Amino acid sequence: MSEDNHTYRLIIHCPDKVGIVAAVSQFIADHNGWLLESNYHADPDDEWFFMRNEIRASSLSLSLDDFRHEFSVLADKHDMRWAIYDSKQPQKVVLLASHASHCLADLLHRWHSGELNCDIPCVISNHENLRSMVEWHNIPFIYVPVDTNNKAAAFSKMESIIEKYQADTIVLARYMQIIPSQMCAKYKDRMINIHHSFLPSFIGANPYAKAYERGVKLVGATSHYVTEDLDEGPIIEQDVVRVGHSHSQEDLVRLGKDVEKLVLARALRNHLENRVIVHGRKTLIFD
Amino acid sequence: MSEDNHTYRLIIHCPDKVGIVAAVSQFIADHNGWLLESNYHADPDDEWFFMRNEIRASSLSLSLDDFRHEFSVLADKHDMRWAIYDSKQPQKVVLLASHASHCLADLLHRWHSGELNCDIPCVISNHENLRSMVEWHNIPFIYVPVDTNNKAAAFSKMESIIEKYQADTIVLARYMQIIPSQMCAKYKDRMINIHHSFLPSFIGANPYAKAYERGVKLVGATSHYVTEDLDEGPIIEQDVVRVGHSHSQEDLVRLGKDVEKLVLARALRNHLENRVIVHGRKTLIFD
Amino acid sequence: MSEDNHTYRLIIHCPDKVGIVAAVSQFIADHNGWLLESNYHADPDDEWFFMRNEIRASSLSLSLDDFRHEFSVLADKHDMRWAIYDSKQPQKVVLLASHASHCLADLLHRWHSGELNCDIPCVISNHENLRSMVEWHNIPFIYVPVDTNNKAAAFSKMESIIEKYQADTIVLARYMQIIPSQMCAKYKDRMINIHHSFLPSFIGANPYAKAYERGVKLVGATSHYVTEDLDEGPIIEQDVVRVGHSHSQEDLVRLGKDVEKLVLARALRNHLENRVIVHGRKTLIFD
Amino acid sequence: MSEDNHTYRLIIHCPDKVGIVAAVSQFIADHNGWLLESNYHADPDDEWFFMRNEIRASSLSLSLDDFRHEFSVLADKHDMRWAIYDSKQPQKVVLLASHASHCLADLLHRWHSGELNCDIPCVISNHENLRSMVEWHNIPFIYVPVDTNNKAAAFSKMESIIEKYQADTIVLARYMQIIPSQMCAKYKDRMINIHHSFLPSFIGANPYAKAYERGVKLVGATSHYVTEDLDEGPIIEQDVVRVGHSHSQEDLVRLGKDVEKLVLARALRNHLENRVIVHGRKTLIFD
Repeated sequence: MSEDNHTYRLIIHCPDKVGIVAAVSQFIADHNGWLLESNYHADPDDEWFFMRNEIRASSLSLSLDDFRHEFSVLADKHDMRWAIYDSKQPQKVVLLASHASHCLADLLHRWHSGELNCDIPCVISNHENLRSMVEWHNIPFIYVPVDTNNKAAAFSKMESIIEKYQADTIVLARYMQIIPSQMCAKYKDRMINIHHSFLPSFIGANPYAKAYERGVKLVGATSHYVTEDLDEGPIIEQDVVRVGHSHSQEDLVRLGKDVEKLVLARALRNHLENRVIVHGRKTLIFD
Repeated sequence: MSEDNHTYRLIIHCPDKVGIVAAVSQFIADHNGWLLESNYHADPDDEWFFMRNEIRASSLSLSLDDFRHEFSVLADKHDMRWAIYDSKQPQKVVLLASHASHCLADLLHRWHSGELNCDIPCVISNHENLRSMVEWHNIPFIYVPVDTNNKAAAFSKMESIIEKYQADTIVLARYMQIIPSQMCAKYKDRMINIHHSFLPSFIGANPYAKAYERGVKLVGATSHYVTEDLDEGPIIEQDVVRVGHSHSQEDLVRLGKDVEKLVLARALRNHLENRVIVHGRKTLIFD
Repeated sequence: MSEDNHTYRLIIHCPDKVGIVAAVSQFIADHNGWLLESNYHADPDDEWFFMRNEIRASSLSLSLDDFRHEFSVLADKHDMRWAIYDSKQPQKVVLLASHASHCLADLLHRWHSGELNCDIPCVISNHENLRSMVEWHNIPFIYVPVDTNNKAAAFSKMESIIEKYQADTIVLARYMQIIPSQMCAKYKDRMINIHHSFLPSFIGANPYAKAYERGVKLVGATSHYVTEDLDEGPIIEQDVVRVGHSHSQEDLVRLGKDVEKLVLARALRNHLENRVIVHGRKTLIFD
Repeated sequence: MSEDNHTYRLIIHCPDKVGIVAAVSQFIADHNGWLLESNYHADPDDEWFFMRNEIRASSLSLSLDDFRHEFSVLADKHDMRWAIYDSKQPQKVVLLASHASHCLADLLHRWHSGELNCDIPCVISNHENLRSMVEWHNIPFIYVPVDTNNKAAAFSKMESIIEKYQADTIVLARYMQIIPSQMCAKYKDRMINIHHSFLPSFIGANPYAKAYERGVKLVGATSHYVTEDLDEGPIIEQDVVRVGHSHSQEDLVRLGKDVEKLVLARALRNHLENRVIVHGRKTLIFD
């Protein structure tokens, strides 16, 4: 990463009122911060304000620690929830997979080719079949089988692996098990799923079978944060592809895979660049 | 319409077996029929066969009546459900509208500019506001108010108008009233609705409000045949448009209008060209 | 328009440097301005900065005239090109049309139904066929025939009409004549065309014929500001639709119409809301 | 491959006249052939007829050799160009790559996961960097460097490799060298390229740079058969993705990659299933 690409991302949300943009941008300017991007949104429903600033790191006249220290005074004054992220500190992303390879292969290639700025400390799967693919990337592959008798133990083991690797983000790359409520709560807004339908259509199992039965003319995929309400979490990204009467259910599955891959990759990229802010049941995407 | 554009459309469906395409195409060839289009589909789930042939009218060596008479022998042998349509006999399409103008204006302009091959004997509405627009097109505008007390009488009046004008097809161009079951049954596969969501998401009232609440990243529209199960009829066409956190609910309504217009117009066009075959809960679209 | 919808739109561009966002947002905050939207972009190629602020009019503690007066001090200091627009002062948009009705009908309906916030003082056409449609909307229709012998005189007449009606913006709604260079210069960044191809493919006449010959799998439309280089002006909006081997050239024309309408309407809407900034050969769209 | 999926694909084109569909489908029915798909197209410009029939192999009462022998009588009578393909005989596809990995990785994964029905006897590249990825798939990787001094020798070597492996199809998976005319002629309609623009826009080198300069609002990719006229061959598939002023040229490259991958994969799939017929400068796609 060149120095030009080294940035800090300042994410803020707080009650809306006159003068917040001025206060924040004045603070940044006072410390010579060069803004590369600045986005904001005011939610009229609950008068809440959101802001994302991307600042060239080399332009700032104070250290990141000093920035944090000094900004907290301003933040307290305006009752802000806020964080600042360093683009040189890539997130640790643990991938969970089952038997299907398409989303996992896609994410691994994006990471391997330098498109995704993150570390992948390990891949966990309840099947062995993708071990070789993962290990070719020099990423540890950890097999944690899950069956009806050992669910609690299996998820407890997975949780300890996630903790050991200090994951910032967990991605369910077509991981087909339902996550226990306690883990959903623990990794709130940090666990990303790809559901193989255009939510809220076809919640739950076998969405392509349901789409085929219903005779829809488009099938889709949805990436969302995992919550304890199945397939009800805040949506990060969605897309669709056209289908017709000549397509079998297997065709829907095949066509849907390409949408799943793209939707998950876009969602994860935005998440890694701190472009996603969860607000109630929804997300803001500052892209 | 030039003679070159004058066609007969032969629509067939029957139990699938070897030799049906051969039998039908041999029959057409024996009478010198020039095929302009020929589409077919075999449904593997219930082994049912579907075919649409578009034949240049001027090429046939027998009249349409004689065609019907002679083809019925072949049809009976293969247990066919079938019909043949003359492109020179445009369908009579009665439009139903409420207060919103966008779908109605769109269909009227397509008809007026010669894009839609149909007659529009009248427009029925439960509001007066679109009268002038309709009458500018030299189409009778019939006001049939509907309120909670007179629903049965109002729909009875509408039904008699539809019968009087011998409508082949009824289009609900954002007509916001629920159609009585008896009318749904009477006009089965002939009454087309546009629902302002990507079904089966957001069935029923206020789909844009629900989409806004859920935070979806695409909103859509669905055109379907009306059945007595609300928004559950066979889907003819669907499409979507991208939305984001900066869009208000009003923006969703506005962006959705363009999708509604296009989806309804495409569905109606395919219906008028006898390209839609209803099969159980689904449609085949031979386009 | 309710008071809540009454806004001022402050558009700025200037050499990029640290502190501009702070200075502008501080100025707005000092006068109690409530920001509804704020967008900005820094062009790294030539270090130029662009900003659009939408301010609730009722929140400001000074009049628009006083705002202009006081802001000019700040603007001069930073070498800004700037303007502030009042959403209550709709632009005057003169529409130019030829024989084809689809774009004109679409824009007129959007205006008539309140979707487009502008005045349409007149429609000018070199054909008579759309007079009745225009006049139904209570808009003057002015027939200015153009043929090879009278081109200069015809355009001179059109220019005087445009001046008489004090048009802010001129829209070529499939107006099929080439505009004289002098008029292109006079109405720079204020004259919007819709070209019926996905530019820069198929510049000039008969783009659908060329697309059909080339066998492309998508056809499109492009809305751009008119410059004296034919079809080379800054692009405001583009879109495409899928076509295939079964589509005739007439089908391409028909399918393309829907794209043309949407693309022109989106471009005009963004232009009217002062969301488009021309920068060299390109546009920025703050939507 | 189960017996149900074992099919023969009969591809025909010939001068158009009455009775061809009847003759072909009667021939198939006489031999008890079960049609799974049947598509046809009549080109009105040059009165040429095209047909693709997909027949369940197990249903036929004669061998493929006998079918070929007997059908040739009918074919000669109607002056047909024709071929019949066995889905159990997957094509041999040689992939050519340069430095960029995205298209190659995508095709290899589709092949590895069973989505693409073909053999990949080897990958040839003028760079070494993708060797390990290819070899992980147990596919030979052959390094054939190309520089200005050795172009003829390098392509001669590549040609002998292609011949040795008896390639049916050659895919340029972002192979960045211009193919000699003689090879273009030799592998006519069998060599597939992916060009990183929406052709005919931005022919030749650096299309994303040109797209960025021009300020287009969509960038695309085009898969086409290679001819000696650079980027002018028959188009198989195209698609686009939306871009805006906030995207850098690098963003266009990144967003374009996803389109390139999808477009090339769809084109190759249709080619492998014998769904593409080249007709002059264009293709028919029977999907």
